Amino acid sequence: MSNNIKRIAVMTSGGDAPGMNAAIRAVVRSCAYHGLECYGIFRGYEGMIEGDFEELGPRSVKNIINRGGTFLKSARSKEFRTAEGRLKAYQELTKAGIDAMVVIGGDGTFTGAHILYKEHGFPIVGLPGTIDNDINGTDYTIGYDTALNTVVEAIDKIRDTASSHNRLFLVEVMGRDAGDIALNAGVGAGAEEILIPEQDMGQDRLLESLKRSKKSGKTSSIVVVAEGDQIGKNILGLADYIREHLTEYEVKVTVLGHIQRGGTPSCYDRVLASRLGVGAIDALLAGEKDVMIGISHNKVVTVPFKHAIEGENEIDIELIRVADITSV
Amino acid sequence: MSNNIKRIAVMTSGGDAPGMNAAIRAVVRSCAYHGLECYGIFRGYEGMIEGDFEELGPRSVKNIINRGGTFLKSARSKEFRTAEGRLKAYQELTKAGIDAMVVIGGDGTFTGAHILYKEHGFPIVGLPGTIDNDINGTDYTIGYDTALNTVVEAIDKIRDTASSHNRLFLVEVMGRDAGDIALNAGVGAGAEEILIPEQDMGQDRLLESLKRSKKSGKTSSIVVVAEGDQIGKNILGLADYIREHLTEYEVKVTVLGHIQRGGTPSCYDRVLASRLGVGAIDALLAGEKDVMIGISHNKVVTVPFKHAIEGENEIDIELIRVADITSV
Amino acid sequence: MSNNIKRIAVMTSGGDAPGMNAAIRAVVRSCAYHGLECYGIFRGYEGMIEGDFEELGPRSVKNIINRGGTFLKSARSKEFRTAEGRLKAYQELTKAGIDAMVVIGGDGTFTGAHILYKEHGFPIVGLPGTIDNDINGTDYTIGYDTALNTVVEAIDKIRDTASSHNRLFLVEVMGRDAGDIALNAGVGAGAEEILIPEQDMGQDRLLESLKRSKKSGKTSSIVVVAEGDQIGKNILGLADYIREHLTEYEVKVTVLGHIQRGGTPSCYDRVLASRLGVGAIDALLAGEKDVMIGISHNKVVTVPFKHAIEGENEIDIELIRVADITSV
Amino acid sequence: MSNNIKRIAVMTSGGDAPGMNAAIRAVVRSCAYHGLECYGIFRGYEGMIEGDFEELGPRSVKNIINRGGTFLKSARSKEFRTAEGRLKAYQELTKAGIDAMVVIGGDGTFTGAHILYKEHGFPIVGLPGTIDNDINGTDYTIGYDTALNTVVEAIDKIRDTASSHNRLFLVEVMGRDAGDIALNAGVGAGAEEILIPEQDMGQDRLLESLKRSKKSGKTSSIVVVAEGDQIGKNILGLADYIREHLTEYEVKVTVLGHIQRGGTPSCYDRVLASRLGVGAIDALLAGEKDVMIGISHNKVVTVPFKHAIEGENEIDIELIRVADITSV
Repeated sequence: MSNNIKRIAVMTSGGDAPGMNAAIRAVVRSCAYHGLECYGIFRGYEGMIEGDFEELGPRSVKNIINRGGTFLKSARSKEFRTAEGRLKAYQELTKAGIDAMVVIGGDGTFTGAHILYKEHGFPIVGLPGTIDNDINGTDYTIGYDTALNTVVEAIDKIRDTASSHNRLFLVEVMGRDAGDIALNAGVGAGAEEILIPEQDMGQDRLLESLKRSKKSGKTSSIVVVAEGDQIGKNILGLADYIREHLTEYEVKVTVLGHIQRGGTPSCYDRVLASRLGVGAIDALLAGEKDVMIGISHNKVVTVPFKHAIEGENEIDIELIRVADITSV
Repeated sequence: MSNNIKRIAVMTSGGDAPGMNAAIRAVVRSCAYHGLECYGIFRGYEGMIEGDFEELGPRSVKNIINRGGTFLKSARSKEFRTAEGRLKAYQELTKAGIDAMVVIGGDGTFTGAHILYKEHGFPIVGLPGTIDNDINGTDYTIGYDTALNTVVEAIDKIRDTASSHNRLFLVEVMGRDAGDIALNAGVGAGAEEILIPEQDMGQDRLLESLKRSKKSGKTSSIVVVAEGDQIGKNILGLADYIREHLTEYEVKVTVLGHIQRGGTPSCYDRVLASRLGVGAIDALLAGEKDVMIGISHNKVVTVPFKHAIEGENEIDIELIRVADITSV
Repeated sequence: MSNNIKRIAVMTSGGDAPGMNAAIRAVVRSCAYHGLECYGIFRGYEGMIEGDFEELGPRSVKNIINRGGTFLKSARSKEFRTAEGRLKAYQELTKAGIDAMVVIGGDGTFTGAHILYKEHGFPIVGLPGTIDNDINGTDYTIGYDTALNTVVEAIDKIRDTASSHNRLFLVEVMGRDAGDIALNAGVGAGAEEILIPEQDMGQDRLLESLKRSKKSGKTSSIVVVAEGDQIGKNILGLADYIREHLTEYEVKVTVLGHIQRGGTPSCYDRVLASRLGVGAIDALLAGEKDVMIGISHNKVVTVPFKHAIEGENEIDIELIRVADITSV
Repeated sequence: MSNNIKRIAVMTSGGDAPGMNAAIRAVVRSCAYHGLECYGIFRGYEGMIEGDFEELGPRSVKNIINRGGTFLKSARSKEFRTAEGRLKAYQELTKAGIDAMVVIGGDGTFTGAHILYKEHGFPIVGLPGTIDNDINGTDYTIGYDTALNTVVEAIDKIRDTASSHNRLFLVEVMGRDAGDIALNAGVGAGAEEILIPEQDMGQDRLLESLKRSKKSGKTSSIVVVAEGDQIGKNILGLADYIREHLTEYEVKVTVLGHIQRGGTPSCYDRVLASRLGVGAIDALLAGEKDVMIGISHNKVVTVPFKHAIEGENEIDIELIRVADITSV
């Protein structure tokens, strides 16, 4: 225990994700539980460099477990990418008497933390907070489950119109490199086709598939497209291509956009955030540093930052088969 | 009573709107209540011309009051725009022994019904079903209240991200000619600015206003833009313009799109649809024809089609003032 | 204009209702717009007596338009019911230099305000904030529309189970004296029967109606019961009575309870709250006092407190007929 | 492959759960995919005995993935509990040419299926469909995730009122034998205390804890109570006990009841149901019988019915600690 840690800071960085507030709350309360002081750092690495800190007690985080976004705010910092910027950040942390830190964010956030640790030996533990579920070593990231529900609810609404008008809708969802949101939300929304970056379907196979759908008696169709998919990148062009070659379809496009990042977190994300927040303080007290706290097989696990930020997203072959079968 | 009406048809046409199913249900059950036969016409005027009819009893419409879209489906019909098409439609109606009809839709739907009545004397009553609230003579259209809630919920989510990142979001909502959705949802979502077709703000006044917001201490902003607004029509161009002139803002664009048409109807829309559906059968039995059934000052009223489809949308001056004051 | 009003206080009192925060926000920002100072009073009349005040600027009320409850909190005050208590309250108000006040609540709140005005001449304007919609002189109260949506969403869920199991559900909703919630949400939820305080149906007519439902082919049923209904008051007893006399039904009871008071306000309630909040400051500046600001025929109106708190709730005969017809 | 299976039946039984329709859809479409015929059995074992079967093609299950409840309906069957009843059921299945079956339900459903297999050798595979998450050998049951979200959303609403009025709310949630819902939803809702059947806290320790909460500055509290908890069983009595001993608290009780069983399934439940439905047909084609298809460590697994229905629910010690820490 101990390692002489008495004052801990917590920070969110990168794109916001539902459940970040629940994670901050768990960190702050876990500090109180262990008799540690806790400081919030505002606006990510930017605020760290500027020394924008504030002490947080257990009542500071009341009534935030259900709120989307992050009350500590988030920002990108060019300065932190320089060695000078990181030195300044380190000096602000030590000046404020902070002994260790919990950062909540995605791989960019972890990369920054990893370098700060390497350069200055500052003990940092990370929590995976991003809707993209693209972090190595954790089965789920905080915010992913909520984003899936948001996408599925949105497509449920679009399906009302699709089936009322016998239309084909192309729905673009987030996922520049990872098709997790598209694949899971596509299966959950009952999409006819799902286009993901990990797998290039090709326009012609998509056309073939849509023709088969029509023949099988389907009167309306939803195609879910991850923004990073090869043929879906230019979604308006894809719509034109389909219109040209499948004249029986009335094709419409919807880009879901930023609604996917916000919203009240799901129960799963709140519980995950609470478990990981508690786990972060446990890890720091046990002398861990330069690691992410993740969830694997429903157990809280420790993963070196180095491992968390490397690796390519793997495609879930079983789920692709489920998608194919259930859209018969 | 009577007018010898024994068999009534019901149909939805134009863009779908939440609450259309609740309206159909009320029409069908009201027919059963009065001992009349009821037929559903599928796919609007298209299905009318093709004789795509089906008898509906009170149990045919169970468990649909809460579903978005329209189970009778909707479609556009080029053929109905010709006198030959309308003659065919009239012949199908009489061949099926239908004595009168209820149509649910917007001004295009009413225009078609009005002409059919003028050419063939067929008794038709209309119900205003459109999210746009742009029909003359009724305070509310079926689907409008639900669309407002959908927009406000979406902007609530976007605001999570906006305030986490201190960003400016331009959010495009439906409304080619009418700013009702933008103005009401903008006030409801706490938007800083609302751009509507009825009022040309001009890019410069928008810039001035955003500068004032920033000075007054606002760290994030939502601008709601009706798709038909003069300077908002090209929303991507507008975003570029703001980026260029207000470099302190990080500007993002979200187009809400088709999620605004779907979804489970609100209680208000279900009750309105039920009242108007009952009112439609009352009106037909009282000998009315060539009229819309609307709501005015919370009373069910009868409005000639001719009046319903004319007139420009009026801007609500009081609400614009409320928007200005509450975004101080 | 003016009346030398420079500092205004705002307060919520009585049961909380969704939209109260939106109303506070509108009052605070309207003060800022007119160059007036604004103070929040915490915990209703209790906090008024204790001088629990805090200055509120336009940024104090950011990001609250979408939150249920009231951040100024609410409480009951025994002391305010005494002349001494009210004198103390008056003295605290004057000591703090407050010239006029906006109170948000129901008839109990208005009664208190009316007496305070009569005893001490203090200028007060009230806003109707209650889910019960039981205030005279306004078509809608702030929170009512949201409560209707909450009830309808809950019954939609219960209907899933009811129709999966062919059951009869008795669902108790709020409404001790007024059946507005039960009647509107009952129509919106497609209830088979609706029991309200204003109309005593009697157990036998309910049994008859349920028998007819069964015969007409209905396999499941929802009966919405206002808590103040004559035969529904003892809802468990009513369930037993039905079980005994209609053995073919499996009867279940659900009491919705306090979920009806909370939740994110609907767009309608947010807009209504914003309009009335702006209207309250307009009224005070125009020299009004001892009045409620309400909505009538979609216009903001001024109603003497005396009129707002008197009168019995009237039953909407037309809507009862709609309920009867649409549940055929 | 094969085993000469050509015709498969699917059935739901026991309490309904969100996602059952998604599971039926996956079974039906997987049959179509493999070229098998599929029949739906209505009203569980009751309908099996009565031969209430209907052929289902891939289009029969369109637009149901997002609907709560089960369109095949569910019922309890006394007759199936007798050997004669089961013989009759078996005869109906063979008469209809059905070669194998998928049943969706909880441990009662599996027990029935296990006996039917033992007595008549009929190949049956089960899917865990219940909100209670109390089945051995699967990490999650279909419907559980949705129920957690429903409970958390309801408590979010109650918290609005609790914190507006500084009240203590006792909220009863489902769980006669298992505290999973209470524990997870309690952590997710930020409850101060969580009472579960697996652990008897005792009234005195609850009082002590609530006193500590008050001292630590909490002004409102939510206590989540599983219906099977020792001291929470009589929730009204518990409320009285608290009122008597902690007079500073205003105590309110809400029983969430049947809203927990219904509602649109979450994305997780839809995907889980789809995977398990596909897995069920895979298993039958691979010659499996007398087994449940579950999910373990995010892989589809096969569990003998005998194992699935035995065993006590285990309490998650780590999550109890998280609950204690995050409610500091």
